[in-house]
Amino acid sequence: MEQNNGLLIVLSGPSGAGKGTICRELLKEMPQVKYSVSATTREPRPGEVDGLHYYFRKKEEFQDMIEKEELLEWAEFCGNYYGTPRFAVEQAIQAGNDVLLEIEIQGALQVKKVYPQGVFVFIVPPSLDELSQRIHNRGTETKEAIEKRLQTAVKEMEYIKEYDYVVVNDEIPIAVEKLKSILTAEKCRVSRKTFVFQGV
Amino acid sequence: MEQNNGLLIVLSGPSGAGKGTICRELLKEMPQVKYSVSATTREPRPGEVDGLHYYFRKKEEFQDMIEKEELLEWAEFCGNYYGTPRFAVEQAIQAGNDVLLEIEIQGALQVKKVYPQGVFVFIVPPSLDELSQRIHNRGTETKEAIEKRLQTAVKEMEYIKEYDYVVVNDEIPIAVEKLKSILTAEKCRVSRKTFVFQGV
Repeated sequence: MEQNNGLLIVLSGPSGAGKGTICRELLKEMPQVKYSVSATTREPRPGEVDGLHYYFRKKEEFQDMIEKEELLEWAEFCGNYYGTPRFAVEQAIQAGNDVLLEIEIQGALQVKKVYPQGVFVFIVPPSLDELSQRIHNRGTETKEAIEKRLQTAVKEMEYIKEYDYVVVNDEIPIAVEKLKSILTAEKCRVSRKTFVFQGV
Repeated sequence: MEQNNGLLIVLSGPSGAGKGTICRELLKEMPQVKYSVSATTREPRPGEVDGLHYYFRKKEEFQDMIEKEELLEWAEFCGNYYGTPRFAVEQAIQAGNDVLLEIEIQGALQVKKVYPQGVFVFIVPPSLDELSQRIHNRGTETKEAIEKRLQTAVKEMEYIKEYDYVVVNDEIPIAVEKLKSILTAEKCRVSRKTFVFQGV
C-alpha cells in the first residue's frame, strides 16, 4: 500500500549541545539508521578502514567530486578536505534505510540547499548556563576559550529558524525518544508518501 | 526556555478506518489530551450531561454561534445541528492541553480553513479488502450498502493530500504509537516554538 524511501536526518546545533552522544544512542537503538560516512583527503590513521570510517580520497579526486557536485556538503580544515558524498547517502536511502548525518551548522545549511527533503534537527543545550557548565566540566579549555565558545553558541542559536525541529538536550534518553518520534512522524507525512490504495 | 501551547489534533478518514478505536486508545494513554466536546441542537438523552457529552444549545443559539463564527466546523444531520465550538478548543489549548477532534472529512476540511495550525491526520484501513471485511463483520449492513460505502471510501481517499499525516490502521497499538510520535514531533517543530534562550 505504501512505499517508503529512507530519510536523511541531519543533526546539528551549537558545539556542547550533546549531538555526538545523542547520535551514538540513536544508532544503538535504531539499527535501520545508518551513520553517514564522510570523504576526506587526510591520511588514514592506523586501523581506519576506507569506506567504513572515511572514504579516503586524493586531493584531486576530492576536487573532482566538488566540481561534479557529488558532495552534499564539504569544508576544509587544517589543509584537508572533508565532505559528505551524495552517492552513499542516496544508495542507503533508496534501499529504505535512514541515514544520520551529524554535522556543524554551516555544513547542515549546505545540505539543506541540495537536499531539502532531509529532516533538519537542531539540538540545543537546555540553557547557556548549562552549556557553560558542560564546557567547564571537560576541563580542557581556558576561560577565554570558553567565553568565546559561549558567544559563538549564542550567535548560532539564530540558525534554529532554518531547521525543521528543535530538540532540547536536557536528558539524553528524552532527547533520543524525541528524535525517534520525529523519525516515525516524518515517515507518516503525506508529502513523503507514494500512496497506492490496493484492492480497488 | 520554551513555551508550548497545546495542539489541536484532527483525526479523520473514511468510515471503517477505525478512527473511533484509535481515539479511545489515545485518550487512555495520554491523559493530557482532551477530547473535544461538540455542540448540538438535539435533545439530551438520559444520562447525558451538558458540557461533558455535548454542549446542548437551542436552534437559535446554534445559529447565532454560526453567524458569529464561534464554530470551527458545523453540519446538519437529520434536522439537528452539530458543531465544534471554538472557545472550548482554544481554552484547552491555551492551558497547554492538546485537544483531539475525531471528525468526518468535510468537517476536518472546514476546521483546516479556520485553524490551519492544527495537526491533520488521515486514518486509513490497510486495504479496501480489509475495509470490506470490517464492514461485513459488523453484520449490520446490506450488500448494496456495503458496496456504496466502499465506493465512498475510494473517493474519500483523494482527500489524503489535504492532510499533514496519514496513518495506516493495520494494528491498533502501532497506529496509536504513530499518533503519539506525531504529537511529540509536532511539539518539537521549530515553526511552533516561541523560543527564548535563557542565560544570555
